[in-house]
Amino acid sequence: MDFAFDAKTEELRGKLLEFMDSHIYPAEAVFERQLAERDSEWSQPPIVEELKAEARKRGLWNFFLPGDHGAGLTNLQYAPLAEITGRSLRLAPTAVNCAAPDTGNMEVLTMFGTDQQKKQWLQPLLDGEIRSAFAMTEPDVASSDARNIATSIRRDGDEYVINGRKWYISGAMNPNCKIFIVMGKTDPDAPAHKQQSMILVPRDTPGMTVKRGMHVFGYTDGDHGGHAEVLFEDVRVPAENLIAGEGDGFAIAQARLGPGRIHHCMRAIGMAERALELMCRRALSRETFGKPIAEQGVVQDWIAEARVKIEQQRLLVLKTAWLMDTVGNQGAHTEIQAIKISTPITVEWILDKAVQLFGAGGVSQDFPVAEMWAQVRTLRLADGPDEVHKRSLAHRELKKYRGEASK
Amino acid sequence: MDFAFDAKTEELRGKLLEFMDSHIYPAEAVFERQLAERDSEWSQPPIVEELKAEARKRGLWNFFLPGDHGAGLTNLQYAPLAEITGRSLRLAPTAVNCAAPDTGNMEVLTMFGTDQQKKQWLQPLLDGEIRSAFAMTEPDVASSDARNIATSIRRDGDEYVINGRKWYISGAMNPNCKIFIVMGKTDPDAPAHKQQSMILVPRDTPGMTVKRGMHVFGYTDGDHGGHAEVLFEDVRVPAENLIAGEGDGFAIAQARLGPGRIHHCMRAIGMAERALELMCRRALSRETFGKPIAEQGVVQDWIAEARVKIEQQRLLVLKTAWLMDTVGNQGAHTEIQAIKISTPITVEWILDKAVQLFGAGGVSQDFPVAEMWAQVRTLRLADGPDEVHKRSLAHRELKKYRGEASK
Amino acid sequence: MDFAFDAKTEELRGKLLEFMDSHIYPAEAVFERQLAERDSEWSQPPIVEELKAEARKRGLWNFFLPGDHGAGLTNLQYAPLAEITGRSLRLAPTAVNCAAPDTGNMEVLTMFGTDQQKKQWLQPLLDGEIRSAFAMTEPDVASSDARNIATSIRRDGDEYVINGRKWYISGAMNPNCKIFIVMGKTDPDAPAHKQQSMILVPRDTPGMTVKRGMHVFGYTDGDHGGHAEVLFEDVRVPAENLIAGEGDGFAIAQARLGPGRIHHCMRAIGMAERALELMCRRALSRETFGKPIAEQGVVQDWIAEARVKIEQQRLLVLKTAWLMDTVGNQGAHTEIQAIKISTPITVEWILDKAVQLFGAGGVSQDFPVAEMWAQVRTLRLADGPDEVHKRSLAHRELKKYRGEASK
Amino acid sequence: MDFAFDAKTEELRGKLLEFMDSHIYPAEAVFERQLAERDSEWSQPPIVEELKAEARKRGLWNFFLPGDHGAGLTNLQYAPLAEITGRSLRLAPTAVNCAAPDTGNMEVLTMFGTDQQKKQWLQPLLDGEIRSAFAMTEPDVASSDARNIATSIRRDGDEYVINGRKWYISGAMNPNCKIFIVMGKTDPDAPAHKQQSMILVPRDTPGMTVKRGMHVFGYTDGDHGGHAEVLFEDVRVPAENLIAGEGDGFAIAQARLGPGRIHHCMRAIGMAERALELMCRRALSRETFGKPIAEQGVVQDWIAEARVKIEQQRLLVLKTAWLMDTVGNQGAHTEIQAIKISTPITVEWILDKAVQLFGAGGVSQDFPVAEMWAQVRTLRLADGPDEVHKRSLAHRELKKYRGEASK
Repeated sequence: MDFAFDAKTEELRGKLLEFMDSHIYPAEAVFERQLAERDSEWSQPPIVEELKAEARKRGLWNFFLPGDHGAGLTNLQYAPLAEITGRSLRLAPTAVNCAAPDTGNMEVLTMFGTDQQKKQWLQPLLDGEIRSAFAMTEPDVASSDARNIATSIRRDGDEYVINGRKWYISGAMNPNCKIFIVMGKTDPDAPAHKQQSMILVPRDTPGMTVKRGMHVFGYTDGDHGGHAEVLFEDVRVPAENLIAGEGDGFAIAQARLGPGRIHHCMRAIGMAERALELMCRRALSRETFGKPIAEQGVVQDWIAEARVKIEQQRLLVLKTAWLMDTVGNQGAHTEIQAIKISTPITVEWILDKAVQLFGAGGVSQDFPVAEMWAQVRTLRLADGPDEVHKRSLAHRELKKYRGEASK
Repeated sequence: MDFAFDAKTEELRGKLLEFMDSHIYPAEAVFERQLAERDSEWSQPPIVEELKAEARKRGLWNFFLPGDHGAGLTNLQYAPLAEITGRSLRLAPTAVNCAAPDTGNMEVLTMFGTDQQKKQWLQPLLDGEIRSAFAMTEPDVASSDARNIATSIRRDGDEYVINGRKWYISGAMNPNCKIFIVMGKTDPDAPAHKQQSMILVPRDTPGMTVKRGMHVFGYTDGDHGGHAEVLFEDVRVPAENLIAGEGDGFAIAQARLGPGRIHHCMRAIGMAERALELMCRRALSRETFGKPIAEQGVVQDWIAEARVKIEQQRLLVLKTAWLMDTVGNQGAHTEIQAIKISTPITVEWILDKAVQLFGAGGVSQDFPVAEMWAQVRTLRLADGPDEVHKRSLAHRELKKYRGEASK
Repeated sequence: MDFAFDAKTEELRGKLLEFMDSHIYPAEAVFERQLAERDSEWSQPPIVEELKAEARKRGLWNFFLPGDHGAGLTNLQYAPLAEITGRSLRLAPTAVNCAAPDTGNMEVLTMFGTDQQKKQWLQPLLDGEIRSAFAMTEPDVASSDARNIATSIRRDGDEYVINGRKWYISGAMNPNCKIFIVMGKTDPDAPAHKQQSMILVPRDTPGMTVKRGMHVFGYTDGDHGGHAEVLFEDVRVPAENLIAGEGDGFAIAQARLGPGRIHHCMRAIGMAERALELMCRRALSRETFGKPIAEQGVVQDWIAEARVKIEQQRLLVLKTAWLMDTVGNQGAHTEIQAIKISTPITVEWILDKAVQLFGAGGVSQDFPVAEMWAQVRTLRLADGPDEVHKRSLAHRELKKYRGEASK
Repeated sequence: MDFAFDAKTEELRGKLLEFMDSHIYPAEAVFERQLAERDSEWSQPPIVEELKAEARKRGLWNFFLPGDHGAGLTNLQYAPLAEITGRSLRLAPTAVNCAAPDTGNMEVLTMFGTDQQKKQWLQPLLDGEIRSAFAMTEPDVASSDARNIATSIRRDGDEYVINGRKWYISGAMNPNCKIFIVMGKTDPDAPAHKQQSMILVPRDTPGMTVKRGMHVFGYTDGDHGGHAEVLFEDVRVPAENLIAGEGDGFAIAQARLGPGRIHHCMRAIGMAERALELMCRRALSRETFGKPIAEQGVVQDWIAEARVKIEQQRLLVLKTAWLMDTVGNQGAHTEIQAIKISTPITVEWILDKAVQLFGAGGVSQDFPVAEMWAQVRTLRLADGPDEVHKRSLAHRELKKYRGEASK
């Protein structure tokens, strides 16, 4: 057992931290200004492409992707880098081409894509030239149970015909989002886990309507391409757009989820560190009742709790990454669920305290804490509400003792 | 001791509930549609004036105001009506002319205004013809300690000259918001509680700039006139615009706060009831894993907790109203702080569960729960963060035993 | 609506508070000394009988019992008196002959007893001459579901024969506990709610063994007669010992529970008030790091929270009492469950903070807070765990909306 | 970074787990029986010595002690073994001679003892022949601030004279507890951290009175020698009984605390694992409302939360052990406080749920959960209440940003 990062990780951490200091943090104010000045709600500020170019030049690129296509890091090596990018969530992950949902989509194409699919869609994604979307969640069903998904993908000659309604399709309002991975049912009569398939749908396909941007506690997340409601009405794509085979959708989704959760959780921990730093600085610089807020016992209690929670949470995510590397996603099932359950609510707690400490400013657009709160609150729902995962984890825990005589 | 409402309250509750059913709830969708279609971010949908006319015709008007100018109700009689309006927070309080911050401003003018001030500003407010704002909070200081407020109100001949920066001035972006009650310092050298004064500043006064709308977790609250940042640069108003005398600002603010907190808290309880109703309906109509969500044990636990919390919270607010009626704001000090501390966080808890139960829809603009959450979260900060009030309440509790020998 | 106590309540409160000051509080140290010196683990210190005599002389007696047999108070009148006795839980309720389980047993006999049963058992209980026990809970089944109760009560000629095992039979180790009300099944084939009956079993009946005292977090509660495990092996009693008819056991239990919960909850609030008082005094008198603990922000937060929670909880219990008086136990069902769910956990929270504030002394026998904690912790389980009651309350809440179309 | 145990740890874990299965768990019932049958409240059941002999024979001995005197393990190697012993807290730590307070006392003597002190006291402790006590906490002061400690240790010729009152001196009622390490002030006028010294006081020294056993929520912990109140009245010991030099007491205490906290925390995690196992088994074997408790959603939620919390907590403690091994106690200061703050309250939460799930049995002497709860609750106070440690940790966190300009 050894809690030190390996040499490669330390090297990359050093480079990335340097890049954060020299480029990302200074770009935050520029980004805000460019957002305020842009002419379309959904266009990306130009600073983003500049940061991407700089990051790529420095070799800070595609950390998330194991193997030859990416940086070739293990989950355990990537995790601390993802944390660092989470400190500037709106800029850093995109700058190093490690932003969701592209990361998951690139993983899917790397693992399951045909050569043609890789050439056409994976390569430009790896190069940061286009963005992509993952269309799974539906408004009309409890999507945490994948079996509920109702969008139909019907074979018709050399084509598939797609009909359905999706929402919260992150990034889809970004005009540069060129390709959608759509999940739907190819065979409603197959066994529950073999009904779904995934298929590639290019942005301009007729019958597909990116209808509106869904909100997240009032935020449109326009700087990231928002969260679209998308209609599929007799959308036709060539049969070769199918990813892997018919009925493989559920398995692909599972393969996609494990790394995705690690990434989300590590970034959330970076957010928590940033929030704690903001809290400490604010507490030291604001006075009330004749002394700095930092001297209020309740504020000290928050700060101590935040530090302890962050340390715990980070270790659990790192161990999960290690398990995924050593025993695979299946062997890390309990831990992947454990971080999905515990990270968002922990970081939400810290951000709640940050909001409180900033007073009216805390809920405003002048400080990042309210928006960070909304981001992390939403993680308690994304990929299924916590409650569903807790139930599943409990079933596995109880299984250890089933069949025994009771004490 | 008697927990039944009196006859007058019951009669008004009956009428108001009928009005909610016949006019307010049906207007909610209309309001949303008109909001989406309006040409300015800050204009009010026309349905609002229609509802006001109807409400006034029915005698559902100015419930909040004791005495001859208003409905003449006690706090205890008004509280259950305020709760009912909280069930449709964006429409009902305005419809019955009981919306903040007008209510507090009308109280101030009723209690402290000159005849001229009453004629010019109170009467059109009572008639629902104009709106008003209360400019106290400042971005640069911890405003929960009123002594920190830095805006200066300086006498210069027959005029006062105002300089300062305010923010989160609710309603100020509404073009119909015609009058601002501004708090500032007339005498920085006076004893701490005699430094502040309040003064009336009409909207079009030169030197005053309504600069921008502040956000609340991404919401602009544009339908209510938003929350403005307002600059005062050598703003001159006649000396007779002062409310009461120089140095009376703190006392007026205190007088204004008691009823204001009751109103906020009762409306928040109405929000909680609405949220619980939405949760129950959703839980009964959504299925996951083969049965309605309502059959999940954890969801039942939320529902039971929500019901219990609402019952507790309502009683505490009602008792506080009764105390204000019987022993005055000063005698109800502990209870007023108690409801300020406990109501927002209680209702926030319920809304958090509602958001969770609605899944992705819960954070969206398609269901009201995310916006309701943001409203009530903000109450933990408005009029000073909970922590300040808890400290003060503890001091009073400890005072009972000071000077004693310890057991 | 009126939150003032009526004149009769105020008068009795005054007398009772005076008795607390003049007799009960001074007796606490005497009681402890006599406990330490007694020769048997289960005998009662003589001070108790002295206090009873004094209380009765002052007319402070049988407050709990409505009608002619008792003080004739309503639940709403008794509740604030029960709270006061909770401030000295080990002495005051017994002193005024309002201690569980006698109170519930006297209610049962008053409502359902025959003249003979009343004469033989009710009268000496009303006079405080004997004590009694209520034997319902069983170790082998989840007793919160009364249908699980397995003790058999079988008719055999002019007698009933009882077989079963009970535990946590409070008061049963007290040698002066002369009569047991035993719940069991007379007809296992009847509909679920008509299987149970209640029957009177005098202490010395052959076949009945008071086996041992059960513990509560290490406490034996010996001063109150403890909590016994009791075996019934072919115990025979005359048929006329049955209370009401065969199959009435469940209904009697329900009738018994409502008032019992009010009493427990009100006493628990008295405990909370005592705990808060102890906390304040300790916080003012202890220094650490150069200032009184009372100046620590976190301690102030606890004190404020405790005050707020107490106020909320008291009102909910009082309203429940009022409902029971005005619409009956059935109409107050939701509120009775609500106080059962919320009072113990609220008071437990306060006592946890009291323990923490007293440091090592907090867990010791030198201060009452650890024992008070254990008492109130156990209420989260007594009469069924909170979770069962929450589930039931949620079912009733959801029922309001069943059958509706969903929004 | 590597989350696997090293080979030595795995080997010892295997041996220890085997010993738990073959000897410790089967001994639990024997231990209970012998406790019930012993003639003195403070004598140890004979099974304990049998287990010690067996453990020593198997080389399962003195794991806690680094260097030649003990097993020579690092903190990181010992930690998982300590966890295992925590699963049977009353037997296993003692069986392998790793029970507090002997462990800390042996560390002190190893690091600071003279040859004579080692020969006389360390050796029999290492051999498990005698027990020892650590006398620091005092009833009259807030002992979490060591500067408050008031016991005086005054030099008088060749002797030191000790006067003071201590309590919660664990193990001191055990007749086999032969030696006390006493902390007191040798120089009240020295700088705050140089006032204290530690000195060895043999059990039979005149003037020393082991007065009574202090309780922990009703438990006397008699099987472990209890927690004594001890009076020192002009107790004289030779000057060579001083440990290290005058004024070194505070430094020794600090050196003692780090490992002590690791041990407590790891054992607490073992308790949590045991509790979770007991919960699962109970939930599977008990039925209510027609199905096993394990199928109740709320119970599943508890089980999932417990599993997640345990995983987090264990990692934090293990990392702390690793830090102590690699950068020393001082470098691990934040983490040592973090585990002191978070472990007891986390494990307490799990035990609270276990108690609840066991119903009345949960608070009784028939299942171990109530006693385990009391043990772990007390850890929130031992070595200073959590609140003191949180304050200190927050100060260190804030220090990072002091002197900066605020953002």
